[in-house]
Amino acid sequence: MAINSKVKADPHAPAISQMLAEFAVGHPSRGWSDAVDREAHRTFANWVGCAIGPSTHETLQAALAAVMELSPAPQASILGRREKVDLANAALLGGISSHTFDFDDTHLRTIIHPAGPVAPAALALAEHLGRSGRELLDAIVIGIEVSCRVGNAIYPDHYDRGWHITGSTGMLGSAAACARLLGLDAARTQMAIGIAASQPIGVREQFGTMTKPFHPGGAAKAGLMSALMAKHGYTASKRALEAPRGLLQVFSDKTDWSQVTDKLGHSWEVALNTYKPFACGIVIHPSIDGCVQLREEHGLKAEDIDSVSIRVHSLVLELTGKKTPSTGLESKFSVYHSCAVGLLYGQAGEHEYTDAVVNRPEVQALRARVEAIVDDTVHEASSDITIRTRDGRTLHRFVEHAIGSVERPMSDAQLRAKFCGQSDPILGAEKSARAWSVAMDIAHCAGMGDLIAAAT
Amino acid sequence: MAINSKVKADPHAPAISQMLAEFAVGHPSRGWSDAVDREAHRTFANWVGCAIGPSTHETLQAALAAVMELSPAPQASILGRREKVDLANAALLGGISSHTFDFDDTHLRTIIHPAGPVAPAALALAEHLGRSGRELLDAIVIGIEVSCRVGNAIYPDHYDRGWHITGSTGMLGSAAACARLLGLDAARTQMAIGIAASQPIGVREQFGTMTKPFHPGGAAKAGLMSALMAKHGYTASKRALEAPRGLLQVFSDKTDWSQVTDKLGHSWEVALNTYKPFACGIVIHPSIDGCVQLREEHGLKAEDIDSVSIRVHSLVLELTGKKTPSTGLESKFSVYHSCAVGLLYGQAGEHEYTDAVVNRPEVQALRARVEAIVDDTVHEASSDITIRTRDGRTLHRFVEHAIGSVERPMSDAQLRAKFCGQSDPILGAEKSARAWSVAMDIAHCAGMGDLIAAAT
Repeated sequence: MAINSKVKADPHAPAISQMLAEFAVGHPSRGWSDAVDREAHRTFANWVGCAIGPSTHETLQAALAAVMELSPAPQASILGRREKVDLANAALLGGISSHTFDFDDTHLRTIIHPAGPVAPAALALAEHLGRSGRELLDAIVIGIEVSCRVGNAIYPDHYDRGWHITGSTGMLGSAAACARLLGLDAARTQMAIGIAASQPIGVREQFGTMTKPFHPGGAAKAGLMSALMAKHGYTASKRALEAPRGLLQVFSDKTDWSQVTDKLGHSWEVALNTYKPFACGIVIHPSIDGCVQLREEHGLKAEDIDSVSIRVHSLVLELTGKKTPSTGLESKFSVYHSCAVGLLYGQAGEHEYTDAVVNRPEVQALRARVEAIVDDTVHEASSDITIRTRDGRTLHRFVEHAIGSVERPMSDAQLRAKFCGQSDPILGAEKSARAWSVAMDIAHCAGMGDLIAAAT
Repeated sequence: MAINSKVKADPHAPAISQMLAEFAVGHPSRGWSDAVDREAHRTFANWVGCAIGPSTHETLQAALAAVMELSPAPQASILGRREKVDLANAALLGGISSHTFDFDDTHLRTIIHPAGPVAPAALALAEHLGRSGRELLDAIVIGIEVSCRVGNAIYPDHYDRGWHITGSTGMLGSAAACARLLGLDAARTQMAIGIAASQPIGVREQFGTMTKPFHPGGAAKAGLMSALMAKHGYTASKRALEAPRGLLQVFSDKTDWSQVTDKLGHSWEVALNTYKPFACGIVIHPSIDGCVQLREEHGLKAEDIDSVSIRVHSLVLELTGKKTPSTGLESKFSVYHSCAVGLLYGQAGEHEYTDAVVNRPEVQALRARVEAIVDDTVHEASSDITIRTRDGRTLHRFVEHAIGSVERPMSDAQLRAKFCGQSDPILGAEKSARAWSVAMDIAHCAGMGDLIAAAT
């Protein structure tokens, strides 16, 4: 087909739709190292905790109320709750919940939150179909590989343009994971990925609203439905991802195909996954980390602090530049608020991003004394912090890599503490501990029964 | 929020999300001329016929089978069938069905198919909620206005880039229509449009596959779910459409805001709607029209024809340049096949785009003798046709506007014949005639009962 000459396009892209489909179907179960499998378990367990934590939040309540208007069949569970809904909406609600606190996992190369669009779709399907924990985990590893490789091919241009890359690549991972769980052949899996390729979800303007967590949820649902449609013979283009008018060239100026094809099946993006110690956008973490470190080392109190100055990459302010947030959700996109709570309380968990804390006078007062300076010589994963005290001292800390990064990963014990911090208030400590244990050993479970029993 | 300087963006866009929401909620019922209301009835009735025609097609069967995996509650009907499904999936299936034959309506300024994403969502909701025909038609007019005005703002750049504009604007119209039927206030309607703004659907690479008709269906469903979520308090950005990282600036280089704001509530895009006399892409119509005219005037038979040469705009070949289609669906994107059947049979209805006809030797032989020459001095709505006969004559016809265009509209009688051509084989002639009559007078119906009784 001829191409409109006004828009440049590459007609010679490799057949990545086919390659990813064949990979998703054909790669052997547990066809990766112990280290990769361990990280996949950490990814899944962290996701379960992040889905349980906000399960009574108004975001999930509103979405669930909308779903209930459809009188859904009780096919699959919602973590942290008693209700069951149909498969597709279980995927939707799981994805929304797990991103509501912005506390989930991050693939730092692309800022994709990998589990959110993939895990809830795979879990809903595995529960409904009676699949094993091993099959579930395989599907999640495969799905994350698909989403993140596509993300690598288009980041950063695609993200710079304004797409929320988690939702705009996640439906592909969800489709691949669900196709594998459904046992589709390569041809139908290619159709599933192709149908999903017409459903990228999410623009960044939604950050700070309930529609941000809708993005992974919507992607999870879109991928699952695409796989179900492909199962029944629904067709899509065989080159839906790579053709000149296929998804990647339509929504990104950068399309580095080698990021999809190189070492496919031999290197694993899930191995690069990281987990947030703080309940806010990842680009704020080094600033919080530095503030917490300076607070602890110098025993700082709010009244000691004259001013706080942080030097950060421009992306930090583009994403989290809200100077005067008035709601908990907005405060997650405020590096100013985050530094203030780090200095005041030594932590930045979900509690520090509630409406109540955002509007505390002491928080507002300290937040007003935080200034941010754009300096693109500082990496976006770093922060350079200078605090002037009322007694005339200048305290300085450069944080190259924040806690929770690939370079400074959270330990299993830290991950468990984070899990229980979210899950205990919902499930109680006993069930919460069981849910953690089951999730961290999911590949040895015969089915989803133990997890669902502990985590709902 | 600061903007990444690598991507240009307009931070001063007018508040179109708010304006469209206030318009959708506040414009009075039937707040337009008789001529507009008549065209809205024609739009609806044509859509009903287009939804009934393919209701037993494999495309709808496959989609329905996938939906049935969710054990949907029987909330709303599927035109042409006995089954009922939940609201959201009734919207999906209605949108898929009505675009399966590529025979539905066209807003020629943007090549949007306006009814497909809006009418099935509004109909499903009106049936479920017991709304009147007047309320249904009002919602459809409003929804089409929203989609097409956004389309006007971004066409042609957005389409040139590779988006299937019907699905990538349709979810906004569906959300507006559904918000109005649900009785949401302006603030919640703004949220409904905002949630929908994260769900543009469809890339053009899918043309020729079942995923093309998925686009209006997916958009219908996305808009309906967005409205239901907004009803229950789900939030989105108040500037989800117009902000620098909102939908329009993310997915289009052209954003002519005045196309949304000028004369809003005073001019009506539905009045510009057109209906296809031929069951294929609109850009092929002038070529078919010319071939049919030459066939009739000169009594041409296949064996008389030595060669056919058409001069057309480059867009025609970009969209419909398949030289050797092998399936019915592919043949809809072949200007070559379309000219051949126009010359052989004097028509190009759904039957001429079946696998059987595509693979007939006489069709293949004539198709091979059709050549297309790109000439961008020919408007994309025109075609210049030259036929050389075996006895040495040169026959010529320039078609400026095809039958079915705004300039040469189909009469009500022609529309009725098209309706019955699709509907009679499904419903039988008696019910089909009743369905047409009810649809053409829907605004006087107390509810959806008469239509559903006749059309399922």
